Amino acid sequence: MQFLSDNAAAVHPAVWQAMKDVDAADAPYDGDRASAALDDAMAMVFGKEVAVLWVATGTAANCLALAAMCPPHGAVACHREAHIEVDEGGAPGFFMHGAKLLLCGASDGSDHAKLTPASLAATLDPIRNDVHQVQPHALSITQASEYGCVYSPGELAALDAECGRRGLGFHMDGARFANAVAFANRPPAEVAGPVDALSFGFIKNGGMSAEAIVFFDTALADVVRYRRKRAGHLQSKGRYLAAQILAMLEGDVWLHNAAAANAAAAEIGTACGERLLHPVQANELFVALTPDERAALRAQGFGFYDWGADAARFVTAWNTRAEDAAALARAIAGL
Amino acid sequence: MQFLSDNAAAVHPAVWQAMKDVDAADAPYDGDRASAALDDAMAMVFGKEVAVLWVATGTAANCLALAAMCPPHGAVACHREAHIEVDEGGAPGFFMHGAKLLLCGASDGSDHAKLTPASLAATLDPIRNDVHQVQPHALSITQASEYGCVYSPGELAALDAECGRRGLGFHMDGARFANAVAFANRPPAEVAGPVDALSFGFIKNGGMSAEAIVFFDTALADVVRYRRKRAGHLQSKGRYLAAQILAMLEGDVWLHNAAAANAAAAEIGTACGERLLHPVQANELFVALTPDERAALRAQGFGFYDWGADAARFVTAWNTRAEDAAALARAIAGL
Amino acid sequence: MQFLSDNAAAVHPAVWQAMKDVDAADAPYDGDRASAALDDAMAMVFGKEVAVLWVATGTAANCLALAAMCPPHGAVACHREAHIEVDEGGAPGFFMHGAKLLLCGASDGSDHAKLTPASLAATLDPIRNDVHQVQPHALSITQASEYGCVYSPGELAALDAECGRRGLGFHMDGARFANAVAFANRPPAEVAGPVDALSFGFIKNGGMSAEAIVFFDTALADVVRYRRKRAGHLQSKGRYLAAQILAMLEGDVWLHNAAAANAAAAEIGTACGERLLHPVQANELFVALTPDERAALRAQGFGFYDWGADAARFVTAWNTRAEDAAALARAIAGL
Amino acid sequence: MQFLSDNAAAVHPAVWQAMKDVDAADAPYDGDRASAALDDAMAMVFGKEVAVLWVATGTAANCLALAAMCPPHGAVACHREAHIEVDEGGAPGFFMHGAKLLLCGASDGSDHAKLTPASLAATLDPIRNDVHQVQPHALSITQASEYGCVYSPGELAALDAECGRRGLGFHMDGARFANAVAFANRPPAEVAGPVDALSFGFIKNGGMSAEAIVFFDTALADVVRYRRKRAGHLQSKGRYLAAQILAMLEGDVWLHNAAAANAAAAEIGTACGERLLHPVQANELFVALTPDERAALRAQGFGFYDWGADAARFVTAWNTRAEDAAALARAIAGL
Repeated sequence: MQFLSDNAAAVHPAVWQAMKDVDAADAPYDGDRASAALDDAMAMVFGKEVAVLWVATGTAANCLALAAMCPPHGAVACHREAHIEVDEGGAPGFFMHGAKLLLCGASDGSDHAKLTPASLAATLDPIRNDVHQVQPHALSITQASEYGCVYSPGELAALDAECGRRGLGFHMDGARFANAVAFANRPPAEVAGPVDALSFGFIKNGGMSAEAIVFFDTALADVVRYRRKRAGHLQSKGRYLAAQILAMLEGDVWLHNAAAANAAAAEIGTACGERLLHPVQANELFVALTPDERAALRAQGFGFYDWGADAARFVTAWNTRAEDAAALARAIAGL
Repeated sequence: MQFLSDNAAAVHPAVWQAMKDVDAADAPYDGDRASAALDDAMAMVFGKEVAVLWVATGTAANCLALAAMCPPHGAVACHREAHIEVDEGGAPGFFMHGAKLLLCGASDGSDHAKLTPASLAATLDPIRNDVHQVQPHALSITQASEYGCVYSPGELAALDAECGRRGLGFHMDGARFANAVAFANRPPAEVAGPVDALSFGFIKNGGMSAEAIVFFDTALADVVRYRRKRAGHLQSKGRYLAAQILAMLEGDVWLHNAAAANAAAAEIGTACGERLLHPVQANELFVALTPDERAALRAQGFGFYDWGADAARFVTAWNTRAEDAAALARAIAGL
Repeated sequence: MQFLSDNAAAVHPAVWQAMKDVDAADAPYDGDRASAALDDAMAMVFGKEVAVLWVATGTAANCLALAAMCPPHGAVACHREAHIEVDEGGAPGFFMHGAKLLLCGASDGSDHAKLTPASLAATLDPIRNDVHQVQPHALSITQASEYGCVYSPGELAALDAECGRRGLGFHMDGARFANAVAFANRPPAEVAGPVDALSFGFIKNGGMSAEAIVFFDTALADVVRYRRKRAGHLQSKGRYLAAQILAMLEGDVWLHNAAAANAAAAEIGTACGERLLHPVQANELFVALTPDERAALRAQGFGFYDWGADAARFVTAWNTRAEDAAALARAIAGL
Repeated sequence: MQFLSDNAAAVHPAVWQAMKDVDAADAPYDGDRASAALDDAMAMVFGKEVAVLWVATGTAANCLALAAMCPPHGAVACHREAHIEVDEGGAPGFFMHGAKLLLCGASDGSDHAKLTPASLAATLDPIRNDVHQVQPHALSITQASEYGCVYSPGELAALDAECGRRGLGFHMDGARFANAVAFANRPPAEVAGPVDALSFGFIKNGGMSAEAIVFFDTALADVVRYRRKRAGHLQSKGRYLAAQILAMLEGDVWLHNAAAANAAAAEIGTACGERLLHPVQANELFVALTPDERAALRAQGFGFYDWGADAARFVTAWNTRAEDAAALARAIAGL
């Protein structure tokens, strides 16, 4: 009964079928019909014109999008718990040629890894126009956040106003964007808000090896097209990646899968009660648990990561079995 | 009847099956059993200890291997027709942080895009130890070469002696290594020769999205492991890539596929006679054809690329139909 | 009466003279006799073989030395108040191609910006051998520290043991190394301790435009020679830089100048008493002063920087006039 | 009697005096009065608004200017004999993060290292909009060229039209711009033509350590200001660099010095007659001389570089003695 991560879940049957369906080549790289269909398919999701590029990892999606917004001598403002800072093995420094991440927000989790105009200002205002300090060129936020929490449209609008005022591009790491949309129960365009580019994750949610970079500022896509090639991310059989994304969009597989993962998390969350360190708004749970309690859960066959000394993280996936979620909920309630 | 490229050919059935077989996750990234099995499977091919990493493109394979051999302030010697110089969109500059390619060899095709100690020396000797010039740290050759020609063990040994004398790492771009082995009809270890790292291509040869970097100098793999992550090339569901490579190795699918492509090329080559610009030793043909002759072939339904003003390139693939190859051979013979 | 910085002080007469003395060219770049004399002159200072390269700024000295120790995919551990982190405009990211700084130590000044094995371990131990995290390859400390405090030989030895255990190169930012030596009243080799490379600052201490990178691991110099050229820091009339350094070393100008600056700081420090936030061990003072008190000092003609809301920083220089230091001491005592 | 290079010539007395005159600090970095005066002083030279930054080397000047015009994923078109390609130790790759140089023009010297719309097109047209090829973002030419030849206003206008048509920034490496102006005997603005940025060299022409980057597109200066800091090229005592440039501009020292060097070269050139490989339009001579002839000249005490197997390069400087030039002219005439 694994709650370690949604990172390794199986591939959804519709994705398999779509990949088989493009086996007959029509063109290499992204010249195929499936790749060409991405823009329109995604425009339907967001109700506006977009340009879409596939890549194989969320790390590449995030870093390629940011590199198009931020020159090497600049910086990207992000939360100090952001995945791009803490878990991508230095990839932002590589893709952005040494551009810096300017870390904002709380270090104690009290802001649920969500930024505000005030937490941005605390980091950015003191260095403004100082030639001895790198200057911010973009803001990157995570939706749902690293603690599984969702920005509201109002919160996004407030950050967008900061971007406008400060001249920053606006990027959203949406590794779990589907989960955020499923929670918010609003149109995807509202959950993405006014960002210039969205790393729209599919791999954790039933895909195999395809994430989409969705450019609302379509001029950025023309830059990233060259940078994707340069980063070794332009696959010659790209049709298999495009097919994955199209399969996830068709019939809203992405939304159904995310809703299933969220529902499992919600059920477990209810059982956690006061133990929850953050509200459960996606498919991650951060739960206060003593070492003994964690050992007891593991003894019952549950897999999960420790989160510091006194807590644990549980992640549900699109294919988490209902009985496993129920079992975990009971086990935690019974501690 | 397409002879444009082997880049977009369909995926081999054994590869599809192997991917399905690993659908049940055992671990994310490269912690899965299939990824762990690569070293041993490849050691069987080469008859010695190796370390193997999967990546999604040949560009990434080449550049990650070279970046482990050459510091940013250095250079890689390669043929001036090398794929890393002419077709990778600046990827070597990106992965190696501005390290330079030192171009060697003939510009008129007369050396079949193969390097020799003499052509290396002509470029490298004049700049030796000059602080105003970047210094070479690695040599990269292509097997089979960009003109579809194969280095013999003796030629490889001569270049290896140069690497030893000059203190260079030795890399082989093996996008069509399988075709070279099938042509040479020798053990893979002899066709790879004494290189430190080999980019072993599978995608052109029946794979979907997995190339192998084979490190004979296994210490390099420990560096590339970190650089692969940093480049956004560590896929969370890496088991699907590992499975592709294992499927290609099992039962020598890689060798059978390459032999089939080579045979088709050989048949066409025989029909080309004096028109051949380079010997046909793999699955590429470079053929002197006037514009009118090319138009005539296209009118008969053959797809291929022009190669300069007076020639064309034809590429066969693992799944080129025998009747298509025969038809092309007849058509060229009948010009 | 300026106590803003030692950064802009006049050039010492001996330095002027030495520059004039090399006006007749003997060779360009660093092929001149003065440049060639640096290794021996500095070997006399440290009592052991060293290799010395001149550069025009401390930023370049620090970053070139670190880039020779740390590959692009790695990281440098340093104090979170280190100049390379807070004041060099992203230069480490540029010179090290996106390698990361791993920040260690206290954020409240309580460790006087000096690192310890424990503060290193707190940052480095949790990420050890995790492919999703950049790994440290070097340690950089500042002597005297950013708060003007001096590492003892014992403290340096303890850090060196950590470097050995963790496989790290060891670098010292010695922008105010002269002041540290003058304070410690020990041989320079003991104040540098067991580091592999030292950025030995002369510009704040009476030079014009020359800092020395002193390599105790002389193999690093061969790397930096190429990187210096590549960074546009190999000046064609390098003899004027070499002459500056030789002039500072001859007759211990560097030590006398630093002692003068330290003495002025010490006099002011005595007057500060309990107001001192850090012990005065070099030529910088960090002094608790209310906004009103700072305004009062400025009204008397003293120039200095605020240090947060409730303190000020004063810096003395080699040519600080005794009467100015005395006046400031009196003014502070009289608050 | 040295004709090796103008790189190491002595510093002009007016430059020494100006440096002494700014010894009393008014501000660090480029906040001083001399640095602030550069824009106006240079605007007088060119008769239009400009923004000027000092740096210590021509390599830094060229690379910082180009890095502001060309993103890392792009390329700079230049002559294949350009200094940025052949003599800067990989600096363009470093400053531009792996952006490529697209080499244009003749490899046999027949175009005197000057580009034309046709030679540009031959390199750039075949790769246009191909995602597998880096795309050009800037053009860099050298005035006077690497063979000491000067672009006319008409030639510059033709290249500028290409830049406009192709969307390229336009940079001029003016390491010997002064010599080009002295030869052309036209206003500096005509000799610079319509470029966006000029690396205006002073070091070869009587300065010590200061080159000027002159931005006609002043927005570029705001970018380079940050990049200069990041590259370790923002010197804390920048006033000594600014003073050098101001001294060279005042009373047209730069032009008088260049005219003197040109006159010496012209005198020697007349003696060379048919031996000249390129017209003498600045202070460099490329002269057909057999090995025996070169040995004979060296035996008479003349220093110079070989230029391939059958020629030599002679360079005059601002302080070349008239008797030395006359002696060399006689010696060559007498061969």
